[in-house]
Amino acid sequence: MHKSRISAFVIDCKVDDLDTATKFWSRALGRAVANPDQDGDGRYAELATGADEPFLLLQKVEHDARIHLDIETDDLDAEVARLEALGAKRLQFVKRWWVMQAPTGHRFCVVRKPHREIGSHANTWD
Amino acid sequence: MHKSRISAFVIDCKVDDLDTATKFWSRALGRAVANPDQDGDGRYAELATGADEPFLLLQKVEHDARIHLDIETDDLDAEVARLEALGAKRLQFVKRWWVMQAPTGHRFCVVRKPHREIGSHANTWD
Repeated sequence: MHKSRISAFVIDCKVDDLDTATKFWSRALGRAVANPDQDGDGRYAELATGADEPFLLLQKVEHDARIHLDIETDDLDAEVARLEALGAKRLQFVKRWWVMQAPTGHRFCVVRKPHREIGSHANTWD
Repeated sequence: MHKSRISAFVIDCKVDDLDTATKFWSRALGRAVANPDQDGDGRYAELATGADEPFLLLQKVEHDARIHLDIETDDLDAEVARLEALGAKRLQFVKRWWVMQAPTGHRFCVVRKPHREIGSHANTWD
């Protein structure tokens, strides 16, 4: 038995400077910048969200602008296998998550380590 | 004074048949299909979400797969003007919403009619 849920919506921005993008989305969505540089490498910024909400992240990327979603789980292997059985494909393992591709063409990430305890709106899978 | 908040994340799918896409995302995210054909034209399907969550919608589109977000507001003109002042551009008015483009290149919609009362996580703007 394992759990998973949507953990984040990530606004991927093809920009040289993530700060300007972060400021726009912070103001547009009325969310404070909780962390302008999450990993200290200028690639991730976090907007403020409630404990019952998915994270809202900005990511500096090389590819065209898009939004992707992250799924968090307490059992990465089981969750990736579950999603593969539904038709998703593994693309690449990065740090502590799998990048996968849905049959609809959307890329998404399955993240091993929950940022906080899996709480609201989690699913439990047999 | 007006209000706005994130109202939906929309999974845009370039598919002939939205049902298959809806079934995948329903299973992947562990969300029941709340409405397989919201407008009766085979273009919108809704996954089940809690009252404190943004809607999760599937949309059948002609462009490449992406995810976009919707902002809902009780004053469309004021909200669009607020977002323009931040650097977003109006692209097109459709039915009851404006399609806008962020300075980061992301397209998003600003929706006039809240699907339900604006509640959790709303911002109030002067």
